Amino acid sequence: MTDATPSNADSVVVSGIQPSGRLHIGNYFGALRQHLDLHTQHEAYYFIVNYHALTSLHDADKMRQYTMDVALDYLALGFDPDEAALFVQSDVPEVTELAWIFYNLMPVSRLERGVSYKEKVSQGLNPNAGLLNYPVLQAADILIYGGTQVPVGADQKQHIEITRDLAQRFNNTFCPDDDPLFTLPEPYILDDVSVVPGIDGQKMSKSYGNTIGIFDEGKALKKKVMSIVTDSTPLDEPKDPEQCNVFALIKLFAEAEQRAEIAEQYRAGGYGYGHAKKELLGLIQDFFAEARERRHELEQRPDYVRDVLRDGAKRARQKTEPLMAQVRNATGLMKTM
Amino acid sequence: MTDATPSNADSVVVSGIQPSGRLHIGNYFGALRQHLDLHTQHEAYYFIVNYHALTSLHDADKMRQYTMDVALDYLALGFDPDEAALFVQSDVPEVTELAWIFYNLMPVSRLERGVSYKEKVSQGLNPNAGLLNYPVLQAADILIYGGTQVPVGADQKQHIEITRDLAQRFNNTFCPDDDPLFTLPEPYILDDVSVVPGIDGQKMSKSYGNTIGIFDEGKALKKKVMSIVTDSTPLDEPKDPEQCNVFALIKLFAEAEQRAEIAEQYRAGGYGYGHAKKELLGLIQDFFAEARERRHELEQRPDYVRDVLRDGAKRARQKTEPLMAQVRNATGLMKTM
Repeated sequence: MTDATPSNADSVVVSGIQPSGRLHIGNYFGALRQHLDLHTQHEAYYFIVNYHALTSLHDADKMRQYTMDVALDYLALGFDPDEAALFVQSDVPEVTELAWIFYNLMPVSRLERGVSYKEKVSQGLNPNAGLLNYPVLQAADILIYGGTQVPVGADQKQHIEITRDLAQRFNNTFCPDDDPLFTLPEPYILDDVSVVPGIDGQKMSKSYGNTIGIFDEGKALKKKVMSIVTDSTPLDEPKDPEQCNVFALIKLFAEAEQRAEIAEQYRAGGYGYGHAKKELLGLIQDFFAEARERRHELEQRPDYVRDVLRDGAKRARQKTEPLMAQVRNATGLMKTM
Repeated sequence: MTDATPSNADSVVVSGIQPSGRLHIGNYFGALRQHLDLHTQHEAYYFIVNYHALTSLHDADKMRQYTMDVALDYLALGFDPDEAALFVQSDVPEVTELAWIFYNLMPVSRLERGVSYKEKVSQGLNPNAGLLNYPVLQAADILIYGGTQVPVGADQKQHIEITRDLAQRFNNTFCPDDDPLFTLPEPYILDDVSVVPGIDGQKMSKSYGNTIGIFDEGKALKKKVMSIVTDSTPLDEPKDPEQCNVFALIKLFAEAEQRAEIAEQYRAGGYGYGHAKKELLGLIQDFFAEARERRHELEQRPDYVRDVLRDGAKRARQKTEPLMAQVRNATGLMKTM
């Protein structure tokens, strides 16, 4: 595992969060936990990328709902708005202006080689221009806050490459006096260290429909946990915990001692999968109890959540306004008001 | 010739002007004269498209200079800021936000079929994404002011087609209750009625380097007029005015009576091309005398010109702010501030 702290003391962490529905425990034990840790350690700008979500989401009510859901999720899970800025991408529309400037420095051929874009084309789809332009808006999102560290999954390095490329192209084109406006950001790879099985035993993923939500509770949570696929070893017989999906999840939530105890019971026999599932259910309930309660509280206070987002946007704009003034000056784009 | 007045009394005329250097008399007797006439007859928004110019102009000083030049040219030639809004595109950065929304409704394949884009590709060039996205920003520029009439050259109809297409796609996707947000604009074709020869006899065009600038004067103007290409018919001999580049220009500037007199002299013989050129020089000087003087005055008052542009931008924003609020509501893009 890599050290969780980027080396540069002046680092600015910039991160876009997709508003794509409720988070699940696979997200949590994958990148989300590390992601949350980062915001207290650096100057950080976390924003909910509703502009990007527009490439596939064309439903206003869902867009609003998902946007608020991300804010609720992050605040409930411990994002501290005093430590860093949490806001909505569309509260800083200047990113689309910076993206426009960047389009003029970026060959179409380069964008056509983008991973997500190529994938869609190879599937015979007819992608929209939003998808083609996606990495350019992402670059604008990073560079407009002076981002130096961008938390990404290992498979997202390419987008940072395009961001670095655009920063360099802008500096070369518009900053002739060896006084570059943009710093080239570095990817900060979030290791997806935990393999979290879904209820069907495949990797937990929204696209497989096998998730357990972080904020699932009551009957819904119970039903999901009880439906985790196991083998048909009879209750009496000994079982191998390392071959069991239920135990794989228990390992994530239980302390070492409890984990060892349960493994022992598996191996001893007379301990059924039903027992294990009840144990897991209790562990999940306890682990997220505080976050769940906090989320309920926050749901009752939408005005507070909006205030948090507004304050975050204000902090973000304190960064973007002087930057965009420099960009306009460097490109000659007049502003009279 | 078509009637210069669009039929609809509620029409909103929207027009982007390229900041591409000084205007010439070919521009004037082509579309510019009609273009200027329109702004007093309708609610009108004329803006200097510096964002679009970025697709090829990467020089901040030139960008600023050309932007101011357009403002000076238009004001000198009679644009009345009390009648309509004249402003700089980048003073309404929301157009880039609306363009971002539109990218997500526009297949890349459709943009690849755009005339200018196809042309560049067929020339073996590697066009940037700004060029590909160009018609989408143009659509945003038109629709954000509720444009119903867009003055264009006959060869620019395709871009209006993309604008109409995007308006319809947005309405269909985001306005389900049969309450369309965007009106489909109509092209208002500016007939390029006058064929204006350049000093080499080809059509006057910046790209041929054969222009006479509207604001050329003194020695520079004289030199250009004197270098207009003619045949070598000796001074004494009769000449056919209709075969003469000088006379073709004289026709544009002279009143009917004077035009007839000069034609007579051509046919009579003893009247040389040098005489004709001197006549033309005087005519040009008189025709643009007022505009030229006004331009000199305005050059001394850059603050006034900026004020005009700022006021224009304010009027424009009175239109765009409520519209963008509706757009954000229809798409679910949150705004907390």
